[in-house]
Amino acid sequence: MKILVLNGPNLNLLGEREPAVYGDNSLETINAELAKKAADMGYDIEFFQSNGEGTIIDSLHTARLDCAGVILNAGAYTHYSYAIRDAIAAIKIPVIEVHLSNVDSREEFRKTSVIAPVCKGSISGFGKYSYVLALSALDYCFGEK
Amino acid sequence: MKILVLNGPNLNLLGEREPAVYGDNSLETINAELAKKAADMGYDIEFFQSNGEGTIIDSLHTARLDCAGVILNAGAYTHYSYAIRDAIAAIKIPVIEVHLSNVDSREEFRKTSVIAPVCKGSISGFGKYSYVLALSALDYCFGEK
Amino acid sequence: MKILVLNGPNLNLLGEREPAVYGDNSLETINAELAKKAADMGYDIEFFQSNGEGTIIDSLHTARLDCAGVILNAGAYTHYSYAIRDAIAAIKIPVIEVHLSNVDSREEFRKTSVIAPVCKGSISGFGKYSYVLALSALDYCFGEK
Amino acid sequence: MKILVLNGPNLNLLGEREPAVYGDNSLETINAELAKKAADMGYDIEFFQSNGEGTIIDSLHTARLDCAGVILNAGAYTHYSYAIRDAIAAIKIPVIEVHLSNVDSREEFRKTSVIAPVCKGSISGFGKYSYVLALSALDYCFGEK
Amino acid sequence: MKILVLNGPNLNLLGEREPAVYGDNSLETINAELAKKAADMGYDIEFFQSNGEGTIIDSLHTARLDCAGVILNAGAYTHYSYAIRDAIAAIKIPVIEVHLSNVDSREEFRKTSVIAPVCKGSISGFGKYSYVLALSALDYCFGEK
Amino acid sequence: MKILVLNGPNLNLLGEREPAVYGDNSLETINAELAKKAADMGYDIEFFQSNGEGTIIDSLHTARLDCAGVILNAGAYTHYSYAIRDAIAAIKIPVIEVHLSNVDSREEFRKTSVIAPVCKGSISGFGKYSYVLALSALDYCFGEK
Amino acid sequence: MKILVLNGPNLNLLGEREPAVYGDNSLETINAELAKKAADMGYDIEFFQSNGEGTIIDSLHTARLDCAGVILNAGAYTHYSYAIRDAIAAIKIPVIEVHLSNVDSREEFRKTSVIAPVCKGSISGFGKYSYVLALSALDYCFGEK
Amino acid sequence: MKILVLNGPNLNLLGEREPAVYGDNSLETINAELAKKAADMGYDIEFFQSNGEGTIIDSLHTARLDCAGVILNAGAYTHYSYAIRDAIAAIKIPVIEVHLSNVDSREEFRKTSVIAPVCKGSISGFGKYSYVLALSALDYCFGEK
Amino acid sequence: MKILVLNGPNLNLLGEREPAVYGDNSLETINAELAKKAADMGYDIEFFQSNGEGTIIDSLHTARLDCAGVILNAGAYTHYSYAIRDAIAAIKIPVIEVHLSNVDSREEFRKTSVIAPVCKGSISGFGKYSYVLALSALDYCFGEK
Amino acid sequence: MKILVLNGPNLNLLGEREPAVYGDNSLETINAELAKKAADMGYDIEFFQSNGEGTIIDSLHTARLDCAGVILNAGAYTHYSYAIRDAIAAIKIPVIEVHLSNVDSREEFRKTSVIAPVCKGSISGFGKYSYVLALSALDYCFGEK
Amino acid sequence: MKILVLNGPNLNLLGEREPAVYGDNSLETINAELAKKAADMGYDIEFFQSNGEGTIIDSLHTARLDCAGVILNAGAYTHYSYAIRDAIAAIKIPVIEVHLSNVDSREEFRKTSVIAPVCKGSISGFGKYSYVLALSALDYCFGEK
Amino acid sequence: MKILVLNGPNLNLLGEREPAVYGDNSLETINAELAKKAADMGYDIEFFQSNGEGTIIDSLHTARLDCAGVILNAGAYTHYSYAIRDAIAAIKIPVIEVHLSNVDSREEFRKTSVIAPVCKGSISGFGKYSYVLALSALDYCFGEK
Repeated sequence: MKILVLNGPNLNLLGEREPAVYGDNSLETINAELAKKAADMGYDIEFFQSNGEGTIIDSLHTARLDCAGVILNAGAYTHYSYAIRDAIAAIKIPVIEVHLSNVDSREEFRKTSVIAPVCKGSISGFGKYSYVLALSALDYCFGEK
Repeated sequence: MKILVLNGPNLNLLGEREPAVYGDNSLETINAELAKKAADMGYDIEFFQSNGEGTIIDSLHTARLDCAGVILNAGAYTHYSYAIRDAIAAIKIPVIEVHLSNVDSREEFRKTSVIAPVCKGSISGFGKYSYVLALSALDYCFGEK
Repeated sequence: MKILVLNGPNLNLLGEREPAVYGDNSLETINAELAKKAADMGYDIEFFQSNGEGTIIDSLHTARLDCAGVILNAGAYTHYSYAIRDAIAAIKIPVIEVHLSNVDSREEFRKTSVIAPVCKGSISGFGKYSYVLALSALDYCFGEK
Repeated sequence: MKILVLNGPNLNLLGEREPAVYGDNSLETINAELAKKAADMGYDIEFFQSNGEGTIIDSLHTARLDCAGVILNAGAYTHYSYAIRDAIAAIKIPVIEVHLSNVDSREEFRKTSVIAPVCKGSISGFGKYSYVLALSALDYCFGEK
Repeated sequence: MKILVLNGPNLNLLGEREPAVYGDNSLETINAELAKKAADMGYDIEFFQSNGEGTIIDSLHTARLDCAGVILNAGAYTHYSYAIRDAIAAIKIPVIEVHLSNVDSREEFRKTSVIAPVCKGSISGFGKYSYVLALSALDYCFGEK
Repeated sequence: MKILVLNGPNLNLLGEREPAVYGDNSLETINAELAKKAADMGYDIEFFQSNGEGTIIDSLHTARLDCAGVILNAGAYTHYSYAIRDAIAAIKIPVIEVHLSNVDSREEFRKTSVIAPVCKGSISGFGKYSYVLALSALDYCFGEK
Repeated sequence: MKILVLNGPNLNLLGEREPAVYGDNSLETINAELAKKAADMGYDIEFFQSNGEGTIIDSLHTARLDCAGVILNAGAYTHYSYAIRDAIAAIKIPVIEVHLSNVDSREEFRKTSVIAPVCKGSISGFGKYSYVLALSALDYCFGEK
Repeated sequence: MKILVLNGPNLNLLGEREPAVYGDNSLETINAELAKKAADMGYDIEFFQSNGEGTIIDSLHTARLDCAGVILNAGAYTHYSYAIRDAIAAIKIPVIEVHLSNVDSREEFRKTSVIAPVCKGSISGFGKYSYVLALSALDYCFGEK
Repeated sequence: MKILVLNGPNLNLLGEREPAVYGDNSLETINAELAKKAADMGYDIEFFQSNGEGTIIDSLHTARLDCAGVILNAGAYTHYSYAIRDAIAAIKIPVIEVHLSNVDSREEFRKTSVIAPVCKGSISGFGKYSYVLALSALDYCFGEK
Repeated sequence: MKILVLNGPNLNLLGEREPAVYGDNSLETINAELAKKAADMGYDIEFFQSNGEGTIIDSLHTARLDCAGVILNAGAYTHYSYAIRDAIAAIKIPVIEVHLSNVDSREEFRKTSVIAPVCKGSISGFGKYSYVLALSALDYCFGEK
Repeated sequence: MKILVLNGPNLNLLGEREPAVYGDNSLETINAELAKKAADMGYDIEFFQSNGEGTIIDSLHTARLDCAGVILNAGAYTHYSYAIRDAIAAIKIPVIEVHLSNVDSREEFRKTSVIAPVCKGSISGFGKYSYVLALSALDYCFGEK
Repeated sequence: MKILVLNGPNLNLLGEREPAVYGDNSLETINAELAKKAADMGYDIEFFQSNGEGTIIDSLHTARLDCAGVILNAGAYTHYSYAIRDAIAAIKIPVIEVHLSNVDSREEFRKTSVIAPVCKGSISGFGKYSYVLALSALDYCFGEK
């Protein structure tokens, strides 16, 4: 059973970018920890990061064929990409929205998520641990059906 | 180390109220499962539910004296209670916002959380499992400091 | 068959409060007249007034167990209490929204009712007679099913 | 003493049009029942239906000369016809706004009534019984003066 | 050279309708005075009043064939009739917007005129004298070309 | 099988009115061409134009009895006539919205169509050819069922 | 009996400034013509132009002592000067709002007049003749009282 | 002559809660100082604090019977409690709105006071001294009548 | 003479994705049918689909060199891609906007098309037949010049 | 130690202007009373009134050199003068906002104060006594530092 | 060839006022450096600063007679002075908008420039160097014609 | 020291695309001139253009490693790409926003720049010379630190 961890724009700069907001772990470190957790839980896990909206959509499309669920941090696309929203709605596997920071405590525009309505659920504000919680949530969703 | 699980208006009707949206577990069932998890993790856990805005604020105030963190499902107060928001900001312990349903996929007014900006983080859409994730998140927050 | 007549904030001051807008009958007088009408129609009737949002929700919850319907004048809570709205949606008995004054002809904020969408119907502008009409409407609703 | 029951656009299709929303009685059936009630109460009653905004205004103007009150279901004109609003304000007899469905529980645009502020009162959500309640309300208004 | 004086909804009730706002002259009196002025200035003058939006448009269409200009008090249609706006734009003769009352000092919705942008000019607030000024303005416009 | 081509306010002035926007064909010419096309496709076709909102509604009501579909250019009523919208929703035959000009490239208010949500589909911007395409679309809809 | 003709910002550039919008008469020419008309009607007339908001207010204050009425073209201050609005409301003599161009057919911001609600009436769109009409209107207002 | 000093939600945490915003005096200290001032001025003074909206309304209702005026810091309820607003409007004694901080220099939602329109006046930004000024203002109001 | 049929994000999933909304034809099937129609009409036709905003822009740029017109279903980019809008405005060949579903009858955000103002015209709601109509429309546009 | 009492537009007309709103004391009377109070408290006091926005800014600039604080009633400039706001922010002495009337109970536009966020605090609704309270507040602020 | 450097409200306090935002150079220093640059480029340069909206308009009017271009920092008037906007549009010489700070990164109201649409271009965020760039830009504009 | 000149969507069509708005220089010509200026100032300069949002982000990320600053014309992405905004905020080198045209004098949507708040400064309206000014500005910024 495979899970895709999909990170959007600027998340490749984690650790270096505004560490006060996003923490000082690199995406590689976060992914490595997550891979270990996933393995313990018996999941295959795949990581993908892209700054391109179309590439993220392509990746969601592919995931529908070989993954059981997606953990998605869509970065700033969260706030306006109706195209990614449509991709999530088009595929049938559960997608969990995650954010490192508490997006509601930042700029006004970050309070709107156009993808949340079509995701299974949403987790934000716990730094890298948001991804771990999402993994746990996905595991719960699989069992739920 | 004590944790308060605080549920707001109408959550006492869980199981009976709109089961298609909120699931068919009663609040008692959810709390019982949660209590077991908390005990396993070594936490004291306390449950409180109230339909009153003022009582919820009182409860948050009390929690600041003897609890290490709060898991809060403020129900509909989430969308307009600036008084609860001020209470969260006034106490120094972490408060995690949880929702059973994916609030963003429902009525327009449910997309606004006036308490999210002062909470530590937010989890929604995983039914009763949202509380379990919040417990896990709180545990992480305690370790983080 | 029991009916609850539930009055919200400041309605205890009827007769004394802005009589030009609300008339000069006290709530007691209105209730007494209503009780007589209800008795004639063969209904048990119960009256409750509270200034507290939580108490009104508690009262709606209780009513679901022993009443067949509710006549609700939620006062100013009409315009912002999503918590009362959720309570109405959560119970299965019909709730009729009433107002003494024509709320649409007053301040801008009174034109919005957040509870109307989940009530059975709405009656406003006929002073104390709004309650009598609501009783009649409730009687009709019971027959309709 | 004469009362005008004035129905606006598309109400001639009652019974046939979206019965789930508007019920399966034709306007003729509703009017017939209403006529009987009015006769019992000692009122002359007149029925008029038109799809034209101007014709509705003409009808209100005429009513001011020979009717003691009007029961008005302005249909979709309710939401934008400031011209009908002005007609109601211009005549001195009481006008009661009625709706078959609970307009607040439907599309967003139906939540605005531009005529409500100049009507005596408003009744909605009780199907054909809304008209009966309006008749009762009008009777009360006549006695009130 | 002929001029059309076109009055919209509810203006047939002038003199009787809210005299504090609209004055106590009937439309007939106003028209009679205006006819005399027009005759003095050498104009044929025609009067038409209708409560119907379509009829007003028909009248504007007809005017384009035999009138040199129009004095238009569109009543409440002023605030939302884009159809009348299109009619004014479609005909090539000048149309002057008039109002008896100072529309900007009344309800919020009266501050918007959807027809003003396609009229030659606008005059409001001078009671029946608004029409006299419009006649004078039209006379000036004819000379201007 | 009969089709109604229904044109709203000011479309009777086609050819004469703002030819840069609407082209220089009269409505008669457009209808004649359309009649020929319809005949070739084996349809009876009926043409009706009115400047009156109520008359357009009446016409839609009648069409439900003897037509299989409607091609509707509601002119400026497109932007605010919820009454026409209700008429379209009330009848069960497909209605196609057409516009001669590209309404989205003109004034702001023309970007809103209150009737589009209840039409089968919408075609705009192709001058008189918009009607021909609508005829074709209607033909397709009939076959589709 | 004295009348003040008060012109606001940029009106000193009339004739030179955007002649397509404002015409090619200088303010001096307009004033001269107006002076003649006023003399014929038996009025003293005084002209004042200023680009300063405060100076315009001062001028209105002074006018209250020795003028019977004011013709005011407040230029762009029309759209935001609540201070000038307060000055008009504070003095008891009638103030007529005039504009050379049809302000409603230009930029969006010109559609709002914050001074109109406290003026006696408003005239716009007739070029320099707007002033002549205002003089006539003022004359009518004096007679009206 | 008695005065009620009524404090709303979270004000019981004064001194401990965000001292940078609210100062480091506890509510007890502030009240003690105020009591002394009131005594010097010859007033009986009563203090009440509650986190509950309904309780605050109850307290205002009671005050109407035995107090001459109220000093009210409604905390966050200031921004949305139309129920408290109605309570203030319902009682006839003067109510002064006070705030410790300059509410206009903080979050956007704090710029709206729904109770201000029905209060006698408003004082904000002077820390605990806001209450002293309010006492002085109340004293002035009593003398004014 | 070549025509480009350009499909945007998620349209590659046609047939599989929400068939109730988009029908059960794959994009390949739709394209094949369209290719046949185009051949009959004497056009070369080229198909391109991409989930990437930039790639769609690139494709529009290339089309300006070797195509006579474009049929564009921009998917969700329709609602916010000002970059695609600028690309359409930058090239000189006609672009027709098409949608399979009636976008106006779905979510609020789908009612806004930022590309419509710079397209030649727009067709929506006829499923795969929307493309056929667009082909026909393009053919008409070529003849029109 | 010097204090500036700075009054903005139209306040020179106090006593004469709308006495129902502003009271019947002239600005001179108010200033005289205030001067006496200030002298008793040991302050030099200076009074300045201007209708000009620029002059008010000049006056604030000057005050920064020789005054310890400012009592400012900016009149209608309160609602839109970002230039005065910037002047207040630019000088380092405390500025207290005062209003004679309860601005929140009047027109909608008076509910916005663009200067409040940069003032020390705000006092409104106590007529001339608002100034006395401001003097007291300023005295407190001096002691506070 | 003369250039006017026109500075608006509060810019006379440069160096002293919020140095973190505006830098610590006085306006005199900035002007001196600019004068030198201008001389090198062969331009006469004139400096004017005023806090008055009317005076700034007067200055723009004068500039049209003897200057070839204007460098304008309108300070806070940038955000609401439609009167200055009209002055810029009325004169025919190019006006360059400059700001010391990056206005878009500050308060919400600073994001709107009502004068930008009628300026030649806009430069902001480079401290005193914004003026130097504007001089360079003006030089380019002169050559461009 | 290297500088990146980064051009966004549709800027590859410069010279050909709407020359009245954007001038008739190709991007190559503009770049060539700019390269010469940069060389004279002692800078390495690199040019990149892309229509893809993700590619632009990639390019900004790369620039942080080997460039000292960026001149960015984000084209239409300026108005909605929060992802590019985040990329600018994430890298530490200064980014200057440039536009060829005066964006504020065009369509409403072009008045919003979501990237401006995180850029060093902004320059618009000077055609190709905007880039030259930006180079100059960047040079100043380097010296400033």
